[in-house]
Amino acid sequence: MAKLNTSTPSGFPEFSVAEQRVVRHWKKIIAEVFEKHGFPLIETPLVERTENFTAKGGNPKEIYVLDRLHADSADQNPAKSRAIRFDHTVPLALFVARHFNELAFPFRRSVIGPVMRGERAQKGRFRQFDQCDIDVIGNGSLSLANDAQMVVIIAEIFAKLMPEQKFVIRINNRKILTAFFAGFQQDPSEFKKILDFIDNLEKNPDAKLAGAPIEFQERILEFVEMSGTNDEILENLAKFLDDEDFQNGVAELREVVSYLRQMGVAEENFQIDLRIARGLDYYTGTVYEMNLLNADGTLNTALGSICSGGRYDDLAGIFTGKSLPGVGISIGLTRLLWQLFDAKIIEPQKSATSDAIILFRSPELLSKALEVGRKSREILGISVENYFEPKKIQKQFAYAEKMGIPVRIIVGEKDIVVEAKEGFEDLKEKIEGVFG
Amino acid sequence: MAKLNTSTPSGFPEFSVAEQRVVRHWKKIIAEVFEKHGFPLIETPLVERTENFTAKGGNPKEIYVLDRLHADSADQNPAKSRAIRFDHTVPLALFVARHFNELAFPFRRSVIGPVMRGERAQKGRFRQFDQCDIDVIGNGSLSLANDAQMVVIIAEIFAKLMPEQKFVIRINNRKILTAFFAGFQQDPSEFKKILDFIDNLEKNPDAKLAGAPIEFQERILEFVEMSGTNDEILENLAKFLDDEDFQNGVAELREVVSYLRQMGVAEENFQIDLRIARGLDYYTGTVYEMNLLNADGTLNTALGSICSGGRYDDLAGIFTGKSLPGVGISIGLTRLLWQLFDAKIIEPQKSATSDAIILFRSPELLSKALEVGRKSREILGISVENYFEPKKIQKQFAYAEKMGIPVRIIVGEKDIVVEAKEGFEDLKEKIEGVFG
Repeated sequence: MAKLNTSTPSGFPEFSVAEQRVVRHWKKIIAEVFEKHGFPLIETPLVERTENFTAKGGNPKEIYVLDRLHADSADQNPAKSRAIRFDHTVPLALFVARHFNELAFPFRRSVIGPVMRGERAQKGRFRQFDQCDIDVIGNGSLSLANDAQMVVIIAEIFAKLMPEQKFVIRINNRKILTAFFAGFQQDPSEFKKILDFIDNLEKNPDAKLAGAPIEFQERILEFVEMSGTNDEILENLAKFLDDEDFQNGVAELREVVSYLRQMGVAEENFQIDLRIARGLDYYTGTVYEMNLLNADGTLNTALGSICSGGRYDDLAGIFTGKSLPGVGISIGLTRLLWQLFDAKIIEPQKSATSDAIILFRSPELLSKALEVGRKSREILGISVENYFEPKKIQKQFAYAEKMGIPVRIIVGEKDIVVEAKEGFEDLKEKIEGVFG
Repeated sequence: MAKLNTSTPSGFPEFSVAEQRVVRHWKKIIAEVFEKHGFPLIETPLVERTENFTAKGGNPKEIYVLDRLHADSADQNPAKSRAIRFDHTVPLALFVARHFNELAFPFRRSVIGPVMRGERAQKGRFRQFDQCDIDVIGNGSLSLANDAQMVVIIAEIFAKLMPEQKFVIRINNRKILTAFFAGFQQDPSEFKKILDFIDNLEKNPDAKLAGAPIEFQERILEFVEMSGTNDEILENLAKFLDDEDFQNGVAELREVVSYLRQMGVAEENFQIDLRIARGLDYYTGTVYEMNLLNADGTLNTALGSICSGGRYDDLAGIFTGKSLPGVGISIGLTRLLWQLFDAKIIEPQKSATSDAIILFRSPELLSKALEVGRKSREILGISVENYFEPKKIQKQFAYAEKMGIPVRIIVGEKDIVVEAKEGFEDLKEKIEGVFG
């Protein structure tokens, strides 16, 4: 028989055991903060009707559809009629349509789970990856305080996960951009080109906007390069263009900044940045992008954007026939962690999830060791492994060492000895208090 | 434009908001108990090379493969060469093969996540469903204490999730069955028919074993109907057949029962039952099935088996070329919860994940309300929502009511009033202590 190729398919990543401990820790903290702010986890199917994805602008080249290895009569669906989600936003819109009457609005939900995109696989780009999203959907209207809340939550998560790491959440408002463009470009369908041009400026500062008059291009650069404190930029914007739509966008941005301060986000963690455009068509107001900062305070451009999102005024409308404004933000977790491991900004977690392990000096002591394990779990409430295999004590120690378990409880015929690595003396004492 | 069909595709279920709160709670408890016993969560890709699934006996009619809606040159894989996992066991074997040198043996891992099977969709049968598995894989050998540990963990999980619910984990050993069959049936490839016959006896007590001599069928019935306490059955088995292989199986079963007692599993929660066969080819020793009990102590057969598993001596061998005995157990979570909701054994959780909500009497008080929210989260460490929308206080109360949030903190111009539902007076007092 030909040898099987057991490697993961290209684009479908798998973390090592030590890396997975970090993944687990991050997901736990992210879910905790989401829930603490009133965003319960809601799961939707991985699979939906293909037509609902293409109706919401999914790229047909990137959409994966389901087929069966050997179809039979049980499968009565036309080919390619079932597809795998490529984000969590379309499934959210479908969930809202399906459960509309059950929901209290504003409806908040979080999700942590995989999506798939048939992109060309390359270093750090995956075809399956976890996204962690929060969204809030209003019925008819939705306060701008919700736009600020997204920033509060993201800032809290990263302060917990990477307490030493400086970061900034850059914010902008699409109303400001589109009103500004409209003065030069009468065809709104051309706005996307300008948005892409701005999106691209960070990577290619010398790029040119094809087909645009030079004075427009210069004015765009003058605009996006506006810098200073948040208040200085807001002041400049108030004078930059005397246009109602433009100033409505400025007023929204000012209101979001005001909420951010009232909600206690540190000034260093958010920054108005007019270059943030977010190419996606459906954003209509606030847009965000978060970046890590280098030690000198500059943007870590190598890592790119850590999370992003924005306000969309009509995502679920096509499915519900109702006006349902929403705002959301998303952490691209798999890609982010992959990059953080790759850049050695965070290290895989070598120590085990178990606080302690129980070893036994000879096979007939297993019974006693099992009792010690049971008591440790019940009385101390700690995570304790029992070693079960009737192997020499040296082998048992080698296992504990390889697993990185910091405390070892060694069951002998006459005594129970507790050994702990540096920093775990307290736990050692607690255990000795029970078995000493 | 034709109206879109937004319903979930057949076989791809979605729980309501109230049901999802239960799903979340169950997953949290299950993960906690898994980790407490030294089984860290390890995630593997949803997608593997199709050949690795078919090599391990996946049913080709049930295997879903990936295709792209519009293929392009980026996709260079042959059609149907990538498939979606139908269980967590084959991905585990692949993970072990891929990370062999990194692992400490016995290698323990848990997983909670979706799998897909292209079964005919019917009431309570799904094409995508979550399974919660634990497995331990030894290198060369693996103590039977591991077989007992599976039962300990499952019993602990259900004692936490359904404290009032009686249940039993029925155990058997495949060595006993196969040695017994071998006395009548020389062709081991026929064993599967007998196993299926036994598996089926619970549903069809009058079924006949096609093609078997009547004395064999009678002897099977005499065998599987052996009843009594665990010790009585073990005693009967010791006398039932004087055959070395048979008695080896009995000795294993006896050893597992002995460990179960040493590990503190209540006698009422496990029962030797010789009808438990588990049709799957790869089980070679201990097998389990768990059932809920009715109030009168009989098996709840309407619900069927809640979780199941067993010992397999060579699951990863085909991928690694090594002898890697393992034992595992699996909770079919989606199907189980669907049935428990359907039978009203558990109720969807109506109350919100938030402990409290902050309402405000007039729009200009939002700023004060935001500060109260921030302080509540920081000082009290509770899960607090802020209501953000500038709506009348009655509308705000209606939202809190629909969400089932038990404590409301109402911010007025001159005071902060706390209201609590019955049973939440302590939290009310705590909050008043901060803002009173």
